[in-house]
Amino acid sequence: MARMKVTVAYDGTDFAGYQIQPSGRTVQGTIQAVLQKIHKGESVSISASGRTDAGVHAVGQVFHFDTDLQIPAEAWSKALNAMLPNDILIKKAERVENSFHSRFSACSKEYHYKLLLNKQPDVFKRNHMFHYPYSLNVADIKRAAELFLGTHDFTSFSSAKSEVEDKVRTIFGLNVMEEDNTLTFKIRGSGFLYNMVRIIIGTLLEVGQGKRKPEEIVTILEGKDRSLAGKTAPAHGLYLYQVNYEEKTE
Amino acid sequence: MARMKVTVAYDGTDFAGYQIQPSGRTVQGTIQAVLQKIHKGESVSISASGRTDAGVHAVGQVFHFDTDLQIPAEAWSKALNAMLPNDILIKKAERVENSFHSRFSACSKEYHYKLLLNKQPDVFKRNHMFHYPYSLNVADIKRAAELFLGTHDFTSFSSAKSEVEDKVRTIFGLNVMEEDNTLTFKIRGSGFLYNMVRIIIGTLLEVGQGKRKPEEIVTILEGKDRSLAGKTAPAHGLYLYQVNYEEKTE
Repeated sequence: MARMKVTVAYDGTDFAGYQIQPSGRTVQGTIQAVLQKIHKGESVSISASGRTDAGVHAVGQVFHFDTDLQIPAEAWSKALNAMLPNDILIKKAERVENSFHSRFSACSKEYHYKLLLNKQPDVFKRNHMFHYPYSLNVADIKRAAELFLGTHDFTSFSSAKSEVEDKVRTIFGLNVMEEDNTLTFKIRGSGFLYNMVRIIIGTLLEVGQGKRKPEEIVTILEGKDRSLAGKTAPAHGLYLYQVNYEEKTE
Repeated sequence: MARMKVTVAYDGTDFAGYQIQPSGRTVQGTIQAVLQKIHKGESVSISASGRTDAGVHAVGQVFHFDTDLQIPAEAWSKALNAMLPNDILIKKAERVENSFHSRFSACSKEYHYKLLLNKQPDVFKRNHMFHYPYSLNVADIKRAAELFLGTHDFTSFSSAKSEVEDKVRTIFGLNVMEEDNTLTFKIRGSGFLYNMVRIIIGTLLEVGQGKRKPEEIVTILEGKDRSLAGKTAPAHGLYLYQVNYEEKTE
């Protein structure tokens, strides 16, 4: 039995999210159906670093699966890409130790969030950036962003639906970059609660609009109450950019 | 009766082309249906600078229509955008002289064609750039591109399906720009025959691959035979970028 680690990109637009469900096209369901064909009808489960919601994209999602087939790593990518629809792309497949786990072995994740600041929407970016034609004080956003760095209880920045007990996470970086009418947020952390990135972004946008002071981030974190934070930013601006693992798996 | 000139962008991915047809979602059909609602059920025809095929995009297509409604130009854009799906965007609506015609008043058109040169495809650009992972001699492409400039009979570079008699057109510019693994062709001319841009691009790619010499463009033009030129490049890399009119219409 060989364990394969696979890095995958997908355009979340036409998926009802990553996770397989009884109805609706999902990333997991689509990949598992292809793997089942390759395994001559035998069902194969894949296990990802985490779910992504409907509309959320991935540049570098990671999953693993176990197989009895004797196929070289490079050939796995080609075989999967040949059978997958073109809104899913296998970027890399590697043989890893059986102790590797896409979720539990991950030591950090990076998400990006993209805003289009043009006054007019852009038909070509409508599913891949959040159109935000309002003026923003980027300096204030950057000041607020710094207050997320470090280890905090992120109860205020997670969906009330979250069932995770321990809401303490560490943010290693939160950079805000403005270029060509695009504002990109890059956030790297030990892990993220349900909707956490989108609530952080939604709150930073309220800071940028002057509805909140940058310093409020501190009191929102301390309050441990979802209602203190801002709105959840829409899914289609969000990208799971990279999942990082301590050990090199090759 | 007021004549309105409208500049519109659309993502051609989910359209069966610009021109209305008995079945299939079209740009013209979608816009006319919205205009009919605004005109309380009265049908309104729009007349564009030209058709675009299924999958072809527009950054600045132009159409005109006539209306009895007393609506300021600015309000037309808002009303249409509020009712149109988000893969069509009205960029500008202007009142023009009744003598203005989107097609016959046009003095030149500009098309862009975009290639993605990365080795791997990009799920986010799959409908908006032609993925071309082969090595290209860009200097040769540029030498060949220059040979299109000026006035020529473009029979060799138009679909055999074309029913137009006069196949003489003038190319004012054909620039090739390489940036960030993207090759963009910008072609401006007096007018274009059916599939002309895509056949020019397909032929230039064969030059870039070394299958043809740049000088061959001259003999292909002189031969006036479609079979002499290269393949038709795919639709999804093509953008109707701009339609130019001699007189300022505002």
